[in-house]
Amino acid sequence: MSNTKVLPLLEPDAPAAGAPCCPPLAERPFTAEEAARTAKMFKALGDPVRLRLFSLVASHEGGEACVCDISDVGVSQPTVSHHLKKLREAGLLTSERRGTWVYYKVAPSVVAAMGQMLALPREGA
Amino acid sequence: MSNTKVLPLLEPDAPAAGAPCCPPLAERPFTAEEAARTAKMFKALGDPVRLRLFSLVASHEGGEACVCDISDVGVSQPTVSHHLKKLREAGLLTSERRGTWVYYKVAPSVVAAMGQMLALPREGA
Repeated sequence: MSNTKVLPLLEPDAPAAGAPCCPPLAERPFTAEEAARTAKMFKALGDPVRLRLFSLVASHEGGEACVCDISDVGVSQPTVSHHLKKLREAGLLTSERRGTWVYYKVAPSVVAAMGQMLALPREGA
Repeated sequence: MSNTKVLPLLEPDAPAAGAPCCPPLAERPFTAEEAARTAKMFKALGDPVRLRLFSLVASHEGGEACVCDISDVGVSQPTVSHHLKKLREAGLLTSERRGTWVYYKVAPSVVAAMGQMLALPREGA
């Protein structure tokens, strides 16, 4: 009998869901595929209510929040849930159910990758 | 008869069009007004064709390009012009007419401000 364990194979060519995608936007023209992947993330933040919710979660104690922590954004709780789900689908938030509530947290690597895409070369460099 | 000229008054409270807006998204929850202003910029990059065009302009020689420099994005020239105008209206590009063509250039301060909004506090900091 063997004690050998089969380790999961890494697939370096397959990007993980929500993984950072692309080089800085000023480095070279994006391909259609890169643009399609990346536009989803920017689109997710392109709605005023989602942007407020994202900043509420990102600035909340411990960097996470649930719908129960969110009020006064002027929309109903189901609408808040809907928008948080959209942010999760875009890879910007992760979620975890604990008891009654789903908690949302910022996905730091994805947000950092978006920030790096917007990095411009320095003037004269 | 008076030669007095009326100078336009500066309005320090009115933000300049396309001026950097907001603190990092993780610093504090955005107000509705901040979110409304900022979502427009993210929305402008939330379309695959606009994102490709933006990266084409940003990575083009001299950091500027006109419609005449842009081909192979799979849409017609009027559609390219339409999207470049949307990027300009969002404050991400500036434009200048020279002869027959309008040249577009990245607005570095606006793009840098977007990048700074996406800056997250370091873990453990």
